[in-house]
Amino acid sequence: MDTRTGLPVVGMVGGGQLARMTHQAAISLGQSLRVLAESPDDSAALVIGDVRIGSHTDLAALREFAKDCDAVTFDHEHVPTEHIAALEGEGVRIYPGSAALLFAQDKGRMRARLAELGAPVPRWRPVNDTADIAAFAAETGWPVIAKATRGGYDGKGVWVLSSPDEAQRLVDTGTPLIVEEKVPLRRELAALVARSPFGQVAAYPVVETVQRDGICVEVLAPAPGLSDERAVAAQQLAIDLAHALGVVGLLAVELFETDTGIVVNELAMRPHNSGHWSIEGARTSQFEQHLRAVLDYPMGSTALTAPAVVMANVLGGASGGMSIDERLHHLFAADPGARVHFYGKQVRPGRKIGHVTVLGDDMTEVRARAARAARWLQEGK
Amino acid sequence: MDTRTGLPVVGMVGGGQLARMTHQAAISLGQSLRVLAESPDDSAALVIGDVRIGSHTDLAALREFAKDCDAVTFDHEHVPTEHIAALEGEGVRIYPGSAALLFAQDKGRMRARLAELGAPVPRWRPVNDTADIAAFAAETGWPVIAKATRGGYDGKGVWVLSSPDEAQRLVDTGTPLIVEEKVPLRRELAALVARSPFGQVAAYPVVETVQRDGICVEVLAPAPGLSDERAVAAQQLAIDLAHALGVVGLLAVELFETDTGIVVNELAMRPHNSGHWSIEGARTSQFEQHLRAVLDYPMGSTALTAPAVVMANVLGGASGGMSIDERLHHLFAADPGARVHFYGKQVRPGRKIGHVTVLGDDMTEVRARAARAARWLQEGK
Repeated sequence: MDTRTGLPVVGMVGGGQLARMTHQAAISLGQSLRVLAESPDDSAALVIGDVRIGSHTDLAALREFAKDCDAVTFDHEHVPTEHIAALEGEGVRIYPGSAALLFAQDKGRMRARLAELGAPVPRWRPVNDTADIAAFAAETGWPVIAKATRGGYDGKGVWVLSSPDEAQRLVDTGTPLIVEEKVPLRRELAALVARSPFGQVAAYPVVETVQRDGICVEVLAPAPGLSDERAVAAQQLAIDLAHALGVVGLLAVELFETDTGIVVNELAMRPHNSGHWSIEGARTSQFEQHLRAVLDYPMGSTALTAPAVVMANVLGGASGGMSIDERLHHLFAADPGARVHFYGKQVRPGRKIGHVTVLGDDMTEVRARAARAARWLQEGK
Repeated sequence: MDTRTGLPVVGMVGGGQLARMTHQAAISLGQSLRVLAESPDDSAALVIGDVRIGSHTDLAALREFAKDCDAVTFDHEHVPTEHIAALEGEGVRIYPGSAALLFAQDKGRMRARLAELGAPVPRWRPVNDTADIAAFAAETGWPVIAKATRGGYDGKGVWVLSSPDEAQRLVDTGTPLIVEEKVPLRRELAALVARSPFGQVAAYPVVETVQRDGICVEVLAPAPGLSDERAVAAQQLAIDLAHALGVVGLLAVELFETDTGIVVNELAMRPHNSGHWSIEGARTSQFEQHLRAVLDYPMGSTALTAPAVVMANVLGGASGGMSIDERLHHLFAADPGARVHFYGKQVRPGRKIGHVTVLGDDMTEVRARAARAARWLQEGK
């Protein structure tokens, strides 16, 4: 507890944009987020007073950081599982716990556990050598999807393999892998829930996520044209997984929608890009919800604030031309209702430097506005 | 400009809750607010990285603070006018400027200027001695309202005088005063606008403000039952005053509604308690709007996000009983849709420690929910 305010202190390991936006939510709750950042120039470190510099792989640094925190949580999934377990052993309230987070950190463990739980998953297999991939492809047909078991994000750590030769070259890199069938998907969805230690769960409306080159570029809330039945099934699946895995905090379940139903693609246990729309688009943002969950507050309303909400990521465009500040002027002049979120990051081509959210009554119109707003910020035109 | 981000730096003099909430808005715009606070325990200083400690009455401290800021603005109106003028003379972009802010700082100057502009104001008179008050009351009848020309807020610096004896006792304190008629008001309203250096103005929906013991306890947006004609007149008045006084940033015009129209009570030139509802209740919050104005960005949409929005202030309750954190748990359980804003302040009876906002379709219901939420946080029941 912060004795100056009588309110709790949450520590977040990692100083990226998720911590930055969580801090905005913490301020409303009377708190100040404490972050463990790699550098004072990290996205969150630029805007937070209570910044500690250190590495998320350094157990001593984590231990020191956790002191006097009412709860510790994460901006990313890269803290070694054994460090989390060690802190748990010392009585630190750290969420999600090591037993849950493991399934977001290790795709092999995740797939095995989901299959055990009877959750819908693509056909998959652990990979020890090229022969495993070839045998799997003999059943499903080429191409197949290979995934690094750890550390992938934004399309990194995922490969489409079309032949035994390609499989051989990937296996030769020594990356621990699993292999999955290439699911004949209609589109991607995401179901976001938050769960508290008490066991209360709040589910957000299911959204459609639109990817380009493996990177999420747009999120549509609610997912257009999704049947109530399938939406409820996706929410229920996420709720069941949150309970079964013992998640505390947010759980984002990335889903493929096929002609016959939904299958789980990935799990994330933190605020997630597929939930950024909730800052303005839901009564309680995912960032506040995550704080409420890890502090065991009752969950907030997940109701939509408008019939159609679209979030578009802003990627760094080519350098040169208009500055980012000039682009912002033009966007504000073009669309006074667009909501902008910049992450305080240097512009690099392809890097997520922010997002925009547009709300309205008509999904087609809202989507066009959001795409135009993101384009203005990316390309200055 | 912050060279790490390519985005501007705004400095705010004063570390209160207005700076705290402005920082939340700054984060979305890719910025970090810089504050000049009296103490590291000030409301805003608790949550901001870029805090400088110093006094707003120390010209050298202000000058040092303003270095490398793209614009400087205020959390309160207590910076000496001559210091602002000195910084302007040195080329600092400081908003609102001294020529405008004077009319928010000095009620005598404000009344004189508004009268000159033909704005509707209560009958009033400058006060040099008790005879001035008595002569004025002879025209209007007792009681009359005396106001300190400088430094009043939240009911402080305002006195209801019922007799020459009471007037004498007040005049004897040496406080510089003006005297005004007691306006037969139906209710109080507020019109909030923002104006940029370019001269663009954005007007928010006119709200009703409900006072108790001179402190604003509730704000209803939009003002219930206000005719379109009178709402537009109030907005136009605020726009005209913003232009005439050369305001840059926010201008809040506190109004009395009488049987025959509106009259101006007070002016404030900063984010204002009557605009806190806009964080969730308007597409662009007053805090972001103020930043956009002082940076000469195009203004954001002021559209309501729900048909009925109510903000209720949370005052410190009696000590003892439930802690503030326990109260928050109970409120969240009772109303999952209530939006809470705590200012990081020690609870002291009567002190504004936060506010809650509730949104919905029906003003009566929304108002009841907001009042109940504020009562939970104040009284724990």
